[in-house]
Amino acid sequence: MGYRPVLTRNARPATYTVDAIDETGARVATPIAGEHPLTLYVDKSELVTLMTLGAAPEALSIGFLRNQRLVASLEQIVAVQVDWEVNAVAVTTRGGLEDLEAKTAKRTATTGCGQGTVFGDLMADIESIRLEDATRIDEESLFGLLNAVRLHESIYKQAGAVHGCALAKGAEILTFVEDVGRHNAVDAIAGWMWLEGIDGRDKTFYTTGRLTSEMVIKAAQMQVPVLVSRSGLTKMGYDVARQVGITMIGRAVNRRYLLFTGAERLVRSGAVAAARRA
Amino acid sequence: MGYRPVLTRNARPATYTVDAIDETGARVATPIAGEHPLTLYVDKSELVTLMTLGAAPEALSIGFLRNQRLVASLEQIVAVQVDWEVNAVAVTTRGGLEDLEAKTAKRTATTGCGQGTVFGDLMADIESIRLEDATRIDEESLFGLLNAVRLHESIYKQAGAVHGCALAKGAEILTFVEDVGRHNAVDAIAGWMWLEGIDGRDKTFYTTGRLTSEMVIKAAQMQVPVLVSRSGLTKMGYDVARQVGITMIGRAVNRRYLLFTGAERLVRSGAVAAARRA
Repeated sequence: MGYRPVLTRNARPATYTVDAIDETGARVATPIAGEHPLTLYVDKSELVTLMTLGAAPEALSIGFLRNQRLVASLEQIVAVQVDWEVNAVAVTTRGGLEDLEAKTAKRTATTGCGQGTVFGDLMADIESIRLEDATRIDEESLFGLLNAVRLHESIYKQAGAVHGCALAKGAEILTFVEDVGRHNAVDAIAGWMWLEGIDGRDKTFYTTGRLTSEMVIKAAQMQVPVLVSRSGLTKMGYDVARQVGITMIGRAVNRRYLLFTGAERLVRSGAVAAARRA
Repeated sequence: MGYRPVLTRNARPATYTVDAIDETGARVATPIAGEHPLTLYVDKSELVTLMTLGAAPEALSIGFLRNQRLVASLEQIVAVQVDWEVNAVAVTTRGGLEDLEAKTAKRTATTGCGQGTVFGDLMADIESIRLEDATRIDEESLFGLLNAVRLHESIYKQAGAVHGCALAKGAEILTFVEDVGRHNAVDAIAGWMWLEGIDGRDKTFYTTGRLTSEMVIKAAQMQVPVLVSRSGLTKMGYDVARQVGITMIGRAVNRRYLLFTGAERLVRSGAVAAARRA
């Protein structure tokens, strides 16, 4: 294991049960997803309040700072301390963050389902990103991953109202994070990758959510060259995907998908076409 | 018609068609939703960049300022001018907005699927909101509304990747707005209500998205006492709904629903229960 900051481990319960009345008049105990404000302080300065399920608040905080390009490496972070008594997380950095004021002056409210705030220029640094060209994923691994996601026991299945993201190698899910906002989920994965020393270059990123520009940018920042969603995409997500050369696969369910960009990384077996001909 | 500011009418095309390759190797022309940055300037000061489908950018801009409680009435707004050449909207106010700096200093990145930024305290002013107690919706109107939404020809049906919101009176859809972020959609409806002089007190708000705290707060701010979603809800959405006394109905599809709060406004016919018994 490499460097790890001092961390609390303060996850919240994922679901709560409330009473509802259904169309027949019956009282139905219904699990619903948690949603909590979590105000992020960096070296005692208030930065932002995230609304989160609270499943992985420490990784979320680290990943938020990573994906906002406010910290350049895990070693800059000394401690991440979540305190739900005051709905706050205190991040202590080594020597403070440079230019925090300037970097956070510009706000972009994104189409992301979730945190939806990007400080600074959304497209900044995108031009400097180079994704690994040699990475390949074969169709059977893709279908295996879709099946693994389907079998994954999730809060979504129990309570709905959350988005899930997975980081996978081939068909294997390495981690699966859910949150009420899907951008929290992707940020938590970014934080987890730093904490566990995981390299994105040979991985696949799966999301239940739509492939908007912000989602594509975050995957590219994490160096993950293959992006898969069961949902659709937006024009700007498509444009950014082409620009950074990411492999983008949408509407991926069971053994179906639509491949939009980066076709060279998907090794097609032709099995589906062959099966249909047979 | 009441007062109207000077407005452009600069909607963007809702969908674009790109090529994809499906699992059989076939090339498939696929419509995808637009997504455009729109930077909002108030009296020449840059406030925020919204990522939007661009279907109703003028109403979105007005509704954003309304729902952020940065303007108190439509009369404060002199002009709303959208210019896609520079991806900007210029809002001119009558005499400037008071305390704009102070009001926008605090950021909350919400769980909303969409713009996801709330300036100031999320819960501020919630305690002063009183919703109309006398409003009623009967079950058949609810089912009629769900059917009307189902029949509505939408970008979602064509391209996916968008959320839809409707303002309805009984079973009748008064307006239906889609956007890549559902909070843009609700903001655009708030702007439209001001422009058309529509009162929320006897209306129902329908959303395809989840009922998070922000969605409940925005409906309450628009004085709409009945909130319906085909999706689920979060614990904080539930808590805020109870606090403001809104009627919240989730998982509403066809002739099914779960009623969570504000049961007094839903007039149940018992028709579904009777049909099942028969």
